[in-house]
Amino acid sequence: MTLAVRYTSARTLDTAPASHSAPGPGEVELAPAFVGICGTDLHIFHGDMDARVATPAVLGHEMSGRVVRVGPDVEGWQAGDAVTVMPLRWDDTCPACRSGHQHVCQHLDFIGIDSPGAMQQRWTVPASTLVRLPDSLPLDRAALVEPTAVAVHDVGRAGVAAGENVVVVGGGPVGILIALVARAAGADVRVVELNPHRRSLAEELGMATWNPADEDVPALVGQWTGDAGADVAFEVSGAAGGVDTAVEVLGVRGRLCLVAIHPRPREVNLHRFFWRELTLVGARLYDRSDFEKAVALVADGTIPADRLISKVVPLTQAPAAFEALEGGGDVMKILVDCTDDTQGATV
Amino acid sequence: MTLAVRYTSARTLDTAPASHSAPGPGEVELAPAFVGICGTDLHIFHGDMDARVATPAVLGHEMSGRVVRVGPDVEGWQAGDAVTVMPLRWDDTCPACRSGHQHVCQHLDFIGIDSPGAMQQRWTVPASTLVRLPDSLPLDRAALVEPTAVAVHDVGRAGVAAGENVVVVGGGPVGILIALVARAAGADVRVVELNPHRRSLAEELGMATWNPADEDVPALVGQWTGDAGADVAFEVSGAAGGVDTAVEVLGVRGRLCLVAIHPRPREVNLHRFFWRELTLVGARLYDRSDFEKAVALVADGTIPADRLISKVVPLTQAPAAFEALEGGGDVMKILVDCTDDTQGATV
Ligand SMILES: [Zn+2]
Ligand SMILES: [Zn+2]
Repeated sequence: MTLAVRYTSARTLDTAPASHSAPGPGEVELAPAFVGICGTDLHIFHGDMDARVATPAVLGHEMSGRVVRVGPDVEGWQAGDAVTVMPLRWDDTCPACRSGHQHVCQHLDFIGIDSPGAMQQRWTVPASTLVRLPDSLPLDRAALVEPTAVAVHDVGRAGVAAGENVVVVGGGPVGILIALVARAAGADVRVVELNPHRRSLAEELGMATWNPADEDVPALVGQWTGDAGADVAFEVSGAAGGVDTAVEVLGVRGRLCLVAIHPRPREVNLHRFFWRELTLVGARLYDRSDFEKAVALVADGTIPADRLISKVVPLTQAPAAFEALEGGGDVMKILVDCTDDTQGATV
Repeated sequence: MTLAVRYTSARTLDTAPASHSAPGPGEVELAPAFVGICGTDLHIFHGDMDARVATPAVLGHEMSGRVVRVGPDVEGWQAGDAVTVMPLRWDDTCPACRSGHQHVCQHLDFIGIDSPGAMQQRWTVPASTLVRLPDSLPLDRAALVEPTAVAVHDVGRAGVAAGENVVVVGGGPVGILIALVARAAGADVRVVELNPHRRSLAEELGMATWNPADEDVPALVGQWTGDAGADVAFEVSGAAGGVDTAVEVLGVRGRLCLVAIHPRPREVNLHRFFWRELTLVGARLYDRSDFEKAVALVADGTIPADRLISKVVPLTQAPAAFEALEGGGDVMKILVDCTDDTQGATV
């Protein structure tokens, strides 16, 4: 038997044995190694997504691992291959798919939310979701590939170019990754973040930061850009004030890339969109090219994954880690280690 | 002496004699022929723009006319030339200008708001603002060039392509012009408009229309597009409900072009921008290439200008026309005729 971390009801996770049948046609069975805990996992844990999530639900979609066995009709993969998973399954028939945007399929199955995720010791997924990892990349760092792919997608949607001035509003894991990817694209980046721990980490990574509680961010952007305003702002905070800041800092023809989830409508200064001919662009998930770029950025150290991993906990401690994360605290990314064979896995 | 229509205070226009000195270096004196009354002119008339407008103010920026005399250092123009004016003066030094977006100069002088406009019998403007009109184009129709340039700019900002499904929310003069320009670009267009007179006019011009008070517009768009949603929506209504409709009708990667002025922040369903990877793009005014395209579209009849001109009034009746327009009513575009020499002009 192997173990799985399961969400059963609001604020309740357990670990339970899980049995696994052989992978079917086109499927691959993986042994997940490391699985990151993401903001969406916390939303599920809080009970905010009960309407969408069928319980008991195995969480987790930021993962690294190895192929254990392959099902019929699977080519190109074999036991032992190091992989990550692009956790999307689409229908290929809806208007979004037909227009080539499968990642926002109108009937998207996001694996780890809509179907069982990676926080378990065996995980069967379609072979089409696999993304190869270089042997040189340690598997703990590779768990950062999925959120890095989000950042690559966001930076691409915003069209960040070398020499541009970029403001990232919200310095959590995705915000920091966006800042790093934008910097790698040649942009000059500032991170706006309330949490002092997150600001310190960003500073340690070489990024200038501003505290919106103490500082007049639009005025500082004006000084920084010679009154031009920023070329690009990323809204990663999910807060109403974050939207305002992102709109206010932009110069003429500036682009606001909307990354965070805002469950309720927000008041937006549309007049400024008109007056300065701003653009707002929504960005969700990623496609395969984003994932492949993310693998390269994590593998070559552009993303200092080890600096972003605050803690690694064994799978049996995952429920406690979720509870600790609820309180916020000074953490960036926590990984769940699914490999520890003292947990009862029969590898 | 010549006459000018002047805004003196909220809801008060008069006509008064105006004297004119010879055009200075780089300037041209025009004899305006026809001047359209625009929504912005009505805002000024209502007193909504008193903070910006220095009184007494000569209104008007949608015009056609002829060159009367040219100042020193003006080349390429001579008395009798038929022209319209792109009523923008920029500083060429601000960040917007330096990045090539002079039309949204951070210190823009919009002639007809920030400096004297065209609703007078003689008008001196920089020669750089002149746009040549073909001799074949009647001057009354040519007064539609400026709002058509707005529509050309908007359709360009939205990137409307042949075969796309386009929803125009708001069927006033600018909305109808956008619909016509988008249709000329090969789009399939629907106009959403409350006013039955405006809907009839749009229908007469061959456009399908929907009444948002009676019909479930997003559902109709779903039927129309096979559940894909529209490729592009133009928000031209200025109403909160118009923003909602424009967001709701869009399909994956749809573009919302924001044309109307929303003086106060609006609640916007940002989640849908994220979920469908929508884009919002602000569009303001025009540049010279938009104006030149607009001249061609009015001249070749793509814009049926004569169908959009509801009424032509002599300059002395302009104050009464503004009062009539205040009440709304079944009009599209009213032109002020500045040429009538019974009004006291000494041509
Ligand atoms: Zn699909
Ligand atoms: Zn300027």
